[in-house]
Amino acid sequence: MLRKYLCLLGFTSILSGSLQAQNFPKDSVTFRNIYDLALTKSSSYANLYTLCKQAPARLSGSDNAAKAVDITYKMLQQVADTAWLQETMVPHWERGTQEEAYLQNGTEKITLNIDALGGSIGTNENGVIAEVIEVNSLDELRNMNADRVKGKIVFINQAMDPKFIDTFGSYSGCAGIRVKGADEAADKGAVAVLIRSLALRNDDHPHTGVMFYKGDKKIPAAALSTNDANKLSDYLTQFKNLKVFIKMNCKSFPDVKSYNVIGEIRGSEFPDEIIVVGGHLDSWDNGEGAHDDGAGCVQSIDVLHILKTLGLKPKRTIRCVLFMNEENGARGADTYAKEALNKKEKHIVAIESDRGGFSPRGFSVEGKDAVLTHCLNRLGQWKHLFAPYLVHIFEKGGSGVDISRLKDQGVALLGFIPDSQRYFDVHHSEEDKFEHVNQRELELGSATMTALIWMFSEYGLNP
Amino acid sequence: MLRKYLCLLGFTSILSGSLQAQNFPKDSVTFRNIYDLALTKSSSYANLYTLCKQAPARLSGSDNAAKAVDITYKMLQQVADTAWLQETMVPHWERGTQEEAYLQNGTEKITLNIDALGGSIGTNENGVIAEVIEVNSLDELRNMNADRVKGKIVFINQAMDPKFIDTFGSYSGCAGIRVKGADEAADKGAVAVLIRSLALRNDDHPHTGVMFYKGDKKIPAAALSTNDANKLSDYLTQFKNLKVFIKMNCKSFPDVKSYNVIGEIRGSEFPDEIIVVGGHLDSWDNGEGAHDDGAGCVQSIDVLHILKTLGLKPKRTIRCVLFMNEENGARGADTYAKEALNKKEKHIVAIESDRGGFSPRGFSVEGKDAVLTHCLNRLGQWKHLFAPYLVHIFEKGGSGVDISRLKDQGVALLGFIPDSQRYFDVHHSEEDKFEHVNQRELELGSATMTALIWMFSEYGLNP
Repeated sequence: MLRKYLCLLGFTSILSGSLQAQNFPKDSVTFRNIYDLALTKSSSYANLYTLCKQAPARLSGSDNAAKAVDITYKMLQQVADTAWLQETMVPHWERGTQEEAYLQNGTEKITLNIDALGGSIGTNENGVIAEVIEVNSLDELRNMNADRVKGKIVFINQAMDPKFIDTFGSYSGCAGIRVKGADEAADKGAVAVLIRSLALRNDDHPHTGVMFYKGDKKIPAAALSTNDANKLSDYLTQFKNLKVFIKMNCKSFPDVKSYNVIGEIRGSEFPDEIIVVGGHLDSWDNGEGAHDDGAGCVQSIDVLHILKTLGLKPKRTIRCVLFMNEENGARGADTYAKEALNKKEKHIVAIESDRGGFSPRGFSVEGKDAVLTHCLNRLGQWKHLFAPYLVHIFEKGGSGVDISRLKDQGVALLGFIPDSQRYFDVHHSEEDKFEHVNQRELELGSATMTALIWMFSEYGLNP
Repeated sequence: MLRKYLCLLGFTSILSGSLQAQNFPKDSVTFRNIYDLALTKSSSYANLYTLCKQAPARLSGSDNAAKAVDITYKMLQQVADTAWLQETMVPHWERGTQEEAYLQNGTEKITLNIDALGGSIGTNENGVIAEVIEVNSLDELRNMNADRVKGKIVFINQAMDPKFIDTFGSYSGCAGIRVKGADEAADKGAVAVLIRSLALRNDDHPHTGVMFYKGDKKIPAAALSTNDANKLSDYLTQFKNLKVFIKMNCKSFPDVKSYNVIGEIRGSEFPDEIIVVGGHLDSWDNGEGAHDDGAGCVQSIDVLHILKTLGLKPKRTIRCVLFMNEENGARGADTYAKEALNKKEKHIVAIESDRGGFSPRGFSVEGKDAVLTHCLNRLGQWKHLFAPYLVHIFEKGGSGVDISRLKDQGVALLGFIPDSQRYFDVHHSEEDKFEHVNQRELELGSATMTALIWMFSEYGLNP
């Protein structure tokens, strides 16, 4: 009798919280359909091929970046209810002709593989040749007497720590040498800075990435392949009066007009509640941007493709955003967040895939206050649905550079986590090419992102 | 008061089972030390290079298999208290000269990439040329009227199902076409059998593997690359009177004497309780046997290396066994199990790594009756220790071909489970080479195996 009243009053759903409204057996079937489709008819691998081969090296401001906008805009028009371009200004830096570098030991000259860091000034046309001082960290450099540095090339030979299980831990422990190395070296009177590439493997490929100057004291900055970093260090131990020659003619140009590429499927019940899924469209200029972040882009497009192909109509709006300029400015992300605020759009969840197209392992979440709690609760309720797909990490942590701009708007931010072991073998180097992406790993990522987005579109974020 | 008595009587440990005796904080530190060492000073990657480059294509009975015995025996002598060779007879089959095959459509001849299946007879010296009949499964062949098959080459074009998350599920659904295809086709009067390679990717590499004849009606059997299987199928749809030519001069020779390679660290408290860790030393003859199963061998050697380097003295005996002849007979495994029985050795646990050197995900267990229950209980108690290392699968399932021979002796059998997405891209083909193994993934596997073996050596299997 009591039970009857409770039912009539709708108390059962209040008593058991939001779980009551969720239909896990049905969701479990939807998950299976999503994964089946992704593993048989995903658009992601073919789209990645097109993007990487027709618009490789799509650094912000480049012709290839403009091409990538056109290509992905067409892809989104195929799968979205509506697709559009969102204008944004972006920085424009060019590497120029291939860098030259060598180690000079008396009459012996040994070629060094370097890539200018993104944003660096070039040398003058004759290059720079100077003695080298090696340090193993920024701290060591900061504590060094300027007399020892003045007029020299600073070589920051800090290796990524291999002991992290999540290699992004190794990366973040080292990224400072790339971003701030030039400034710190210039403060002590150095004429250039060479950093050990941020890579876990020993090979001959330099890995570039962004650096910034905080003031006017600008010196050229480049990354050296890990093999050459080891070689240079060995030579410095063995010989005196070594010199290194560097010549680069990279430079910055005025800002350029570019675009975020956007497409959405309109929600059937709560169209004003927006769920963003995205990656970044720009890439470094020395590779094809396959894992970073072609994978995230084609997976985000694939989310719409999979839902559309399965005839799944989301209750909330699902918007795919391919952000321009994550690599050296995040200007597209800034523009997107600003316009969302101006238009008073209600974003509830954003998911970014920007850690490579490897086997999916889970998601990490950030968000303000209750948003974080609600999101972690949701993941806790749903994680059993992911278990058959071997997706098992659901935890507090970073999300993605692009979506992080939405944090202040009370959005739950999720970073897609694939297996991280191989990422820094290819990251920001010529090794980041289509051939190094495995089709199944990429597709499983698409499916995992689609499944999570489907759950948020069905049940929302709040309990 | 009651509590006091219980303590005095040692009841607390009975009440809470074996957990009472386990020291998880200490184990957690040991795990960290094991993973740190594996990621910085593992022997596995360098050993894999040596094995793959000095003894590639080490099929049972070959000179390279003998070389592999020498090489790994030396490796084990470095890290084991005792190392020895265990004699076993093995089959000896040779591919002979490179196979030839083409598709003939009128005057057009299109080369086909094939590999004879291991154990197949060759054709005669002129090869065989015949019309082709395509089927998509063994069942389709079995249900076919013999008139349609007689005198033809049967082409079994069954694709691996990509919808399995664990690709071994896709493999086992198809392996029958390779093992039994020749017999089934010969029963209907076919002159040869071609199977679609057991691979999930479309490429030009044929994937070989074992086949058996059950009777005297023997016909040549070969695997066709997936690209060529698609091409042949397309041609068969479009054209009539196509013929395929096959020439192979593979053959079987008398059995050869070979060895399992064994090394152990003697247990300090329970030396008679043996924990086996192993892989198989033989490989197919068309690649380097890097993932299959060089990885499992060097990881098993690494278990001893890691324990020795860390100064960890196991309470129970840890024995590394590199089994000969898993690929086409498992004669080494039979010999090992038989001698263990004859010598009344007490094996408690065996772990096999034979699914490639990819990122570790967990273990699957089999065993008779209580042994299985005890083992699953242990894994349940310990899985939290593995969570920081992203190892999360602990379930009932298959173990490994070699250790499975020990099942009747009441041994808990565990299969090491790495990520399976890329395995069938390389499996049994020329793509299975050292360069396709990622160092960190391999090392994390070593660490995961070492950690689990350490726990069994500390606490045993039974509650």
